Amino acid sequence: MSHIYKVIDIVGSSPSSIEDAIDQAIARTSDTVKNVEWFQVDQVRGHVENGKVGHYQVAIKLGFRLDEK
Amino acid sequence: MSHIYKVIDIVGSSPSSIEDAIDQAIARTSDTVKNVEWFQVDQVRGHVENGKVGHYQVAIKLGFRLDEK
Amino acid sequence: MSHIYKVIDIVGSSPSSIEDAIDQAIARTSDTVKNVEWFQVDQVRGHVENGKVGHYQVAIKLGFRLDEK
Amino acid sequence: MSHIYKVIDIVGSSPSSIEDAIDQAIARTSDTVKNVEWFQVDQVRGHVENGKVGHYQVAIKLGFRLDEK
Amino acid sequence: MSHIYKVIDIVGSSPSSIEDAIDQAIARTSDTVKNVEWFQVDQVRGHVENGKVGHYQVAIKLGFRLDEK
Amino acid sequence: MSHIYKVIDIVGSSPSSIEDAIDQAIARTSDTVKNVEWFQVDQVRGHVENGKVGHYQVAIKLGFRLDEK
Amino acid sequence: MSHIYKVIDIVGSSPSSIEDAIDQAIARTSDTVKNVEWFQVDQVRGHVENGKVGHYQVAIKLGFRLDEK
Amino acid sequence: MSHIYKVIDIVGSSPSSIEDAIDQAIARTSDTVKNVEWFQVDQVRGHVENGKVGHYQVAIKLGFRLDEK
Amino acid sequence: MSHIYKVIDIVGSSPSSIEDAIDQAIARTSDTVKNVEWFQVDQVRGHVENGKVGHYQVAIKLGFRLDEK
Amino acid sequence: MSHIYKVIDIVGSSPSSIEDAIDQAIARTSDTVKNVEWFQVDQVRGHVENGKVGHYQVAIKLGFRLDEK
Amino acid sequence: MSHIYKVIDIVGSSPSSIEDAIDQAIARTSDTVKNVEWFQVDQVRGHVENGKVGHYQVAIKLGFRLDEK
Amino acid sequence: MSHIYKVIDIVGSSPSSIEDAIDQAIARTSDTVKNVEWFQVDQVRGHVENGKVGHYQVAIKLGFRLDEK
Repeated sequence: MSHIYKVIDIVGSSPSSIEDAIDQAIARTSDTVKNVEWFQVDQVRGHVENGKVGHYQVAIKLGFRLDEK
Repeated sequence: MSHIYKVIDIVGSSPSSIEDAIDQAIARTSDTVKNVEWFQVDQVRGHVENGKVGHYQVAIKLGFRLDEK
Repeated sequence: MSHIYKVIDIVGSSPSSIEDAIDQAIARTSDTVKNVEWFQVDQVRGHVENGKVGHYQVAIKLGFRLDEK
Repeated sequence: MSHIYKVIDIVGSSPSSIEDAIDQAIARTSDTVKNVEWFQVDQVRGHVENGKVGHYQVAIKLGFRLDEK
Repeated sequence: MSHIYKVIDIVGSSPSSIEDAIDQAIARTSDTVKNVEWFQVDQVRGHVENGKVGHYQVAIKLGFRLDEK
Repeated sequence: MSHIYKVIDIVGSSPSSIEDAIDQAIARTSDTVKNVEWFQVDQVRGHVENGKVGHYQVAIKLGFRLDEK
Repeated sequence: MSHIYKVIDIVGSSPSSIEDAIDQAIARTSDTVKNVEWFQVDQVRGHVENGKVGHYQVAIKLGFRLDEK
Repeated sequence: MSHIYKVIDIVGSSPSSIEDAIDQAIARTSDTVKNVEWFQVDQVRGHVENGKVGHYQVAIKLGFRLDEK
Repeated sequence: MSHIYKVIDIVGSSPSSIEDAIDQAIARTSDTVKNVEWFQVDQVRGHVENGKVGHYQVAIKLGFRLDEK
Repeated sequence: MSHIYKVIDIVGSSPSSIEDAIDQAIARTSDTVKNVEWFQVDQVRGHVENGKVGHYQVAIKLGFRLDEK
Repeated sequence: MSHIYKVIDIVGSSPSSIEDAIDQAIARTSDTVKNVEWFQVDQVRGHVENGKVGHYQVAIKLGFRLDEK
Repeated sequence: MSHIYKVIDIVGSSPSSIEDAIDQAIARTSDTVKNVEWFQVDQVRGHVENGKVGHYQVAIKLGFRLDEK
């Protein structure tokens, strides 16, 4: 069957790791969007505080399947 | 008059052609969004099944005019 | 605190300047979206009428902070 | 022999397919330019009318060989 | 009707603003080319003189409709 | 299960359509490579002959799953 | 001495981290290819399952030195 | 004479316009660097405050001629 | 207040993780540069030794605020 | 004075070197275009014959100053 | 006739010139691959030794025609 | 050992060849910077004088190892 997907851009952040920032973005989005199936990392950046990474900011695309009509 | 547009990312798919995948994406979106005016192809990819294209997946941007307030 | 942002794509237009097209896009969006924090210019284009710029069309990304749950 | 080519940018359009839009661009150009040898697709976009593709607009580069002097 | 467009690359310049450099490029081109319909900014750069912008150089693409045959 | 994929670059060609050029590339590759699962279009170009498209050349990436060891 | 390298594209995957997906890709390749010397990350994406990352898919280039003849 | 240039990346900001942000970046740099000759705009972004542009942030490259030795 | 930032390119490396390579780059830079505020990852690559990642090399941009004059 | 430039795309070729291919492109163009001031290399490619470079094909942009009106 | 090509990525190196690095890559590949027809330069880089270029490293794509079946 | 590198952007120029322009950029930089290890070509451009290349301008990135602290 041929599905249709919508793709949205989300920036997650985390003080601990790139993976955790991705998790935060997906978790927050999955509350309001159904059928999230894949992500793609667009950019990794972050803030520096006191000579260390304060938190990572990871911009991802999130693809979710639209319901059949 | 100066219009404002919103642009969304949709992935349509079709077993038959790139054009049909674009059509599927636009048709599904036009049900819930008014004033869709243009599209732009971002990526063409797809799945291979038994040594042939199973279906095309075409990622497009869709621009629609926001209503005047 | 680690915030989550959503990023949307808007095209603003203006007959007078690039800056005004950006303002139009942000103003129209801020009516319906809370917590818009930043923008990024993706593309500047426009229509030509009678050998002059008829209006500028500026595509921007707009990032807004999602509410804590 | 070492040939010199000029490359021009043309946007063809067609209500029926991407291939036909390419054909329209090449046909229109070949009337006035000799020795067109190759094309490259730069962008596929188009207008949407009544929830369907109104016409495809395909931007291509066209390379033609300049005559030996 | 399905139009065919040619796209050319022009660099306009101005000591005062980015918008004025775009205007200069369009004005100079419209003298010799008919039916210019749109522009797209490719690059903004410029010369620095005495610690200030001497003039802006704005590279644009200009699209004009080719006459029907 | 976590699969490993290898991705190769193939250019298929066809006198008739972009889709057929993709099919040619996949068919020729599937003779010697097992488990081809997806493709992605990188570039569409082609030769012009007598003012028409002589054949399309479509560069694609092809991903195939490596056997478990 | 002037070496010649071949570069191949591999997608590794892992349920745990980006680094582990890279390791999987290198380990699987090193079984059949000698002299792998460097890698470069091209893309990080992955599948989402139940509102969490199911596994990371990391596309890398792998460079290996060809034997002297 | 063949000159050597160094290129540095500066982000200027201004509450009023893109041009003014460029001016701020150049003015601040010209205090400590001699022979600044050209700039190139890499990115235009900014902060939004109360539904309006708070200030523009313009990332530019600045090229300055190194003294002959 | 409108700040001016300088952006520099640093490559950090680490045998353990991408995040640690970023940390190394920031830590080394913060010794000699004040007011480092943000980073952006440009490229992740690394060396392979004995079929495993020997160390990650992560190229980042680092932005630091220039003092007011 | 603020000049206006037109930029055209030319592919030069040469059996001997990249520099010679650039020279060929400029020499052929200067016969028919006045005031060519700068070039920029877009792509270097070429044909292989008998396991050696048959000739280099170098695509360049050429900028020439339009006459004042 | 519609040919199918495979494209591979090779990095050649040479202490003397960019052209020689390309030649090295093609020569080494032509020993084991038949019908190499074209190349495209992807990146030019190299090592510096004692304040001079130690050797150029040129990454190219190489296209070779697959035999008809 | 895990090294940290700084990367700077230099434009070298030469009337004779691309390689010589790279050499000029490295030579001028090596006077004031220690431990330059690699370069990468970002752009090749130049000025045209009397229908010939007046001089090549080659923009490179130069990576040098920062001293251990």
